[in-house]
Amino acid sequence: MDLSGIGWLGCEDKGRPGGHRFASSVALDGQHFAYRTRVCQEVKAEDAGQTVRLAGWLSAERKISKKASFYSLRDASGIIQLIVRRSGESDLEDPLTKMSRTPEESVVSVLGRVKLRPQSSKNANVSTGDVELEVEGFELLNAADELPFYPHDEHNLANEDLRAKYRYLDLRRPALANNIKMRSRVAHFVEVETPMLLQTSPEGAREYLVPARLSSAMTNAPSSTPSSSAIPAAPQFYALSQSPQQPKQLLVCSGGIEKYFQFARCFRDEDGRKDRQPEFTQVDLEMAFVSWSPSAIPNGEQHHSIPGEYADEQRWRIGGTEIRNVIENVICEVWQTALGAELPPNLGVMTYRMAMEKYGSDKPDLRMNSALPRSSTHIGQITLSDSKRVIDYLVVPREDQEMLKELMALREAGVQSYVVDGKMAWEEGLARELDLSGNVQATRSGLELPEGTLLIGCARDKYLTVRQGGSTSMGKIRLRLSELAEQKYGLAYPKYCFTWITEFPLFSKDEDKEFMAHGRWSSTHHPFTAPMLEDLPLLEQGRYEKVRGQHYDLVLNGMEIGGGSVRVHSAKLQEKIFRDVLQVGSVELVGPNFCYTNSLFTTTQLTETEIKSFDHLLKALKYGAPPHGGIALGFDRLMSIICDTKSIRDVIAFPKTAGGTDPVFRSPSGIPDETLRLYGLRSM
Amino acid sequence: MDLSGIGWLGCEDKGRPGGHRFASSVALDGQHFAYRTRVCQEVKAEDAGQTVRLAGWLSAERKISKKASFYSLRDASGIIQLIVRRSGESDLEDPLTKMSRTPEESVVSVLGRVKLRPQSSKNANVSTGDVELEVEGFELLNAADELPFYPHDEHNLANEDLRAKYRYLDLRRPALANNIKMRSRVAHFVEVETPMLLQTSPEGAREYLVPARLSSAMTNAPSSTPSSSAIPAAPQFYALSQSPQQPKQLLVCSGGIEKYFQFARCFRDEDGRKDRQPEFTQVDLEMAFVSWSPSAIPNGEQHHSIPGEYADEQRWRIGGTEIRNVIENVICEVWQTALGAELPPNLGVMTYRMAMEKYGSDKPDLRMNSALPRSSTHIGQITLSDSKRVIDYLVVPREDQEMLKELMALREAGVQSYVVDGKMAWEEGLARELDLSGNVQATRSGLELPEGTLLIGCARDKYLTVRQGGSTSMGKIRLRLSELAEQKYGLAYPKYCFTWITEFPLFSKDEDKEFMAHGRWSSTHHPFTAPMLEDLPLLEQGRYEKVRGQHYDLVLNGMEIGGGSVRVHSAKLQEKIFRDVLQVGSVELVGPNFCYTNSLFTTTQLTETEIKSFDHLLKALKYGAPPHGGIALGFDRLMSIICDTKSIRDVIAFPKTAGGTDPVFRSPSGIPDETLRLYGLRSM
Repeated sequence: MDLSGIGWLGCEDKGRPGGHRFASSVALDGQHFAYRTRVCQEVKAEDAGQTVRLAGWLSAERKISKKASFYSLRDASGIIQLIVRRSGESDLEDPLTKMSRTPEESVVSVLGRVKLRPQSSKNANVSTGDVELEVEGFELLNAADELPFYPHDEHNLANEDLRAKYRYLDLRRPALANNIKMRSRVAHFVEVETPMLLQTSPEGAREYLVPARLSSAMTNAPSSTPSSSAIPAAPQFYALSQSPQQPKQLLVCSGGIEKYFQFARCFRDEDGRKDRQPEFTQVDLEMAFVSWSPSAIPNGEQHHSIPGEYADEQRWRIGGTEIRNVIENVICEVWQTALGAELPPNLGVMTYRMAMEKYGSDKPDLRMNSALPRSSTHIGQITLSDSKRVIDYLVVPREDQEMLKELMALREAGVQSYVVDGKMAWEEGLARELDLSGNVQATRSGLELPEGTLLIGCARDKYLTVRQGGSTSMGKIRLRLSELAEQKYGLAYPKYCFTWITEFPLFSKDEDKEFMAHGRWSSTHHPFTAPMLEDLPLLEQGRYEKVRGQHYDLVLNGMEIGGGSVRVHSAKLQEKIFRDVLQVGSVELVGPNFCYTNSLFTTTQLTETEIKSFDHLLKALKYGAPPHGGIALGFDRLMSIICDTKSIRDVIAFPKTAGGTDPVFRSPSGIPDETLRLYGLRSM
Repeated sequence: MDLSGIGWLGCEDKGRPGGHRFASSVALDGQHFAYRTRVCQEVKAEDAGQTVRLAGWLSAERKISKKASFYSLRDASGIIQLIVRRSGESDLEDPLTKMSRTPEESVVSVLGRVKLRPQSSKNANVSTGDVELEVEGFELLNAADELPFYPHDEHNLANEDLRAKYRYLDLRRPALANNIKMRSRVAHFVEVETPMLLQTSPEGAREYLVPARLSSAMTNAPSSTPSSSAIPAAPQFYALSQSPQQPKQLLVCSGGIEKYFQFARCFRDEDGRKDRQPEFTQVDLEMAFVSWSPSAIPNGEQHHSIPGEYADEQRWRIGGTEIRNVIENVICEVWQTALGAELPPNLGVMTYRMAMEKYGSDKPDLRMNSALPRSSTHIGQITLSDSKRVIDYLVVPREDQEMLKELMALREAGVQSYVVDGKMAWEEGLARELDLSGNVQATRSGLELPEGTLLIGCARDKYLTVRQGGSTSMGKIRLRLSELAEQKYGLAYPKYCFTWITEFPLFSKDEDKEFMAHGRWSSTHHPFTAPMLEDLPLLEQGRYEKVRGQHYDLVLNGMEIGGGSVRVHSAKLQEKIFRDVLQVGSVELVGPNFCYTNSLFTTTQLTETEIKSFDHLLKALKYGAPPHGGIALGFDRLMSIICDTKSIRDVIAFPKTAGGTDPVFRSPSGIPDETLRLYGLRSM
């Protein structure tokens, strides 16, 4: 396993011996790639003389001379001819040298000048046949392994079984990709349907199983259980899709579809979570060529901004701004159409660290921020003298202390209150830490509070909340404070407060769950989320708790309405995450191996079998996967907010009860034993 | 059971003693109802003086005097006040008498004149508050039973469990209906999502089962298996939706949603059927207030029309023309958008009988009709002397007889060929029947064929094919003949030939299937299809083989791309079909109780338990269900034709193999025994 950080982003320069150190820096630079200015299809004769940037898949080289070569560059829109001449630059910077060392079907970005082709070499068969691109700059975005077959060789198609197994490569074949796109055109929105009958997967929450009838057809199915003709075949199962995560990544990795969209029905078998449905709908999105961190796009106007230490944490510092833009446009249009409401052009951003520290929640409700007259709208921090612990606190002025009694009655774990110079006191030890000897102004905490001010506070480990997710005790008190103030002052909080939360910890360590291997790491969201570029060295050094992911949640009024990420597009980096961080040792997992940590659902450590089950994804990354990212919005929750209903059941035509039963159609129910037998099953 | 035909359509006049005979004719007349000219919401002050027809749900009566009353009429758009005065007409025809005998929440159609309300009685709270409708004509479309609760009493909502059980009544409540409609507005098309996790149903093909985890929540579930705390609970299952048939009917019966639309993922566990997928997509549609048979709308221009006996069978003689119009518009727009092709404004119609007789198929390919130069484009019939049998025949002129050898090699069951005055002879008996003694001109068959003509024929029972479905032997030969002629003459057949097939037999009798109760009837499509109005007396008389359904298939190039029907909206008629026609006696069914008869899938006889499982539907019909109908188009097949692919796999991003396995994600597969235990299951 290469731990030097080289090639994790798929940009290793394979052809150059000893070039690793250098390749690494190229690789990192390469990720700051500028978004293409055109798609291939759009380059026309009238553009002659212009400089354009394109991105796509590189063909094999066709040499003209020692000093010049032709290539073709292909994206989902079409194909264009590249001409590359040896430059005067050093070998290392010369585009022709770099390109001739790049494997066929690698994903690349090229900068070049549009030129008219000589009359004799025009190609009437392709729409860009009048022009070619004289390449001036070249970036390798993701190097391809040798493919099991080359999908563009239409005259010499690979056999059907091989194409079926590598469907994501076959989808790169224009004839097939065009069918799927035609389907979307007819459905009137850019949509691709992905399978709902899927394979059991270790990637998320609990899944619903679907037994497959045992028949001759099934005995040909790949199975993890060896079957013999002497004993009855072992029962076989599909799993209902929990989300189209893997199919949509494969789709975009295929290169045939660059922008995917679907209203996807998803299924999760969870109980005990409030206002959830066993089947729900998500607006699902994935795009190729999204930018990697750090984003070059400056942040727009910020709302509820907190100056000082947190100023920079209110910027979008990760990749995937293209996804952000699409979603902000969609949300604005939906709010306009459905509610006649005008939203600000930017929805605001904060880091996970800031959200947890200032609002005590990874889905902060910001409605009170613009209205609360006197009390704190965000949580303050005082670092204790041991430097390991901090006090989170909220301040309530004397005039509002009639709310005190109710706030105190909340009895959130560890929370204490103190009235400056008043009769209530911090727990003795804490008061000593804070040097709260009757006059806060005089302490080294630096707080300047008038006498009679109520201070509500809670000590915590300095780094704990950062990995905790959900809501802290102080976060809950902040929400209750805002409710009380709303009642007391008859405040009109703004109706809709959005914020993006970014830079989540990539890995979580949850030592509470007994069935998990103690002290091992799991993915905070899912194992395909890309780390932040600047945290790659930390990943290398094994300081997993410090590694932040390029994950973004969209939060509205304290509810998570969507989440997504820039994905890992390098097979090496993906494999490192699987094996070095997530793979379980020899510990056998017992029981269901998925769990929820508050609102973040985590994947626990992976067994060898589970890593093998991601084989198709790892392969797809190796065969020229573009940088990509996506998001999913919870459509039911979104509609519930738009319609202002108490439960998502009120926006679903035929919902299930909280217990998962259907009161109209009366499911689930028993079935005859004879039917069970068709699946190789019987009752216990 | 009332066998007099009275009230099957839900229009029994409950208030009048001894009025049954008369009520029956009113009921039948009532079904010829004219489509409304407005929805309630659209009636405005500027319409004063105009006569409009509305349809919707009737409120309770508010008496003004002995001679006049107010009512409200409500549809999905809104509500309007009706004023009804006693007319000079006889009691039987007087609208006020009829209306005062109509139960609250019945579905009615009213004709009336728009009047401005006096200033003092205007209602600013509803958009139609300036006007009222002075009722001149009244038709009862479907009488309502007493409802378990009245959804419009918003101040006094029924308890949540009751509303959950009768979700289709709760959906009549404007607040809830508006949520679902808002959902559709945001999704940018008129769409309602229906559950995929459904109840096991006896309505169709094989279904996929989904085991539910056994938990405390489940023990509260209604279950057909009694469970005790001493023994483990019996396994409980959902079934994946085979089609949204029942949810969509309930949705429209609710009255909250009058026009439903969905791209619905459907699941069917069938093997051995060519080019099918375990999961597929259908464009699904259902509308309230569709007209019943016979349709008053004259048929448009016919293509490939056959004169004489069949002329009238090329008309749309059943209800549901509103569905036909919607689908023809959709298809035309899709062909225009996706293919730039202009389709004729009407897609052509023929009855099932005509399709089976003239084309030997219930999905005839009509492409050859306009191009075949000399050979038959449709099958002829000669009735044999016993009057019980006919000969189906095709004619091939002498010039085309080089095709003979290949046609003969087909060896279709029962097919023989004969060259007029040539060396080949019909089987002796048949030749005698036809009096084919060397000179066809001279026979009583009436055929005038030149010497050397090839006659290909097959005898059959006169009525058999009408119930057979699929393709007959002669139908297959007709298709092969067209292929051979296409090759021989290099014919350019038209690319797309559509036709509607109507008037399918409502019931089928399939005596081949051993597991079926011998000689009993089953529904040709599903038990919710309405009979043709003129065949109601046949249903009453038990002549089930003669009853035709208001079912329509849309056929393109010999492939069924969609099918639907006008539904039964009367609980009495629905119950009669369940009990008198479909209910199995004491015969116990063994094994799967669904089967396919060629392309028509049939529901076999129903057990008492199965009839009980339709309880929610029967109830929904009783609480004021509007006349309704719908259709589903096979989206995969449609796209396969539009993209001109050999298989539907080529228009699906990640298809399963013919054996139902997934070559990319490698499903289905085994799971650990511990997991099975969560569902109360184990391997056999």
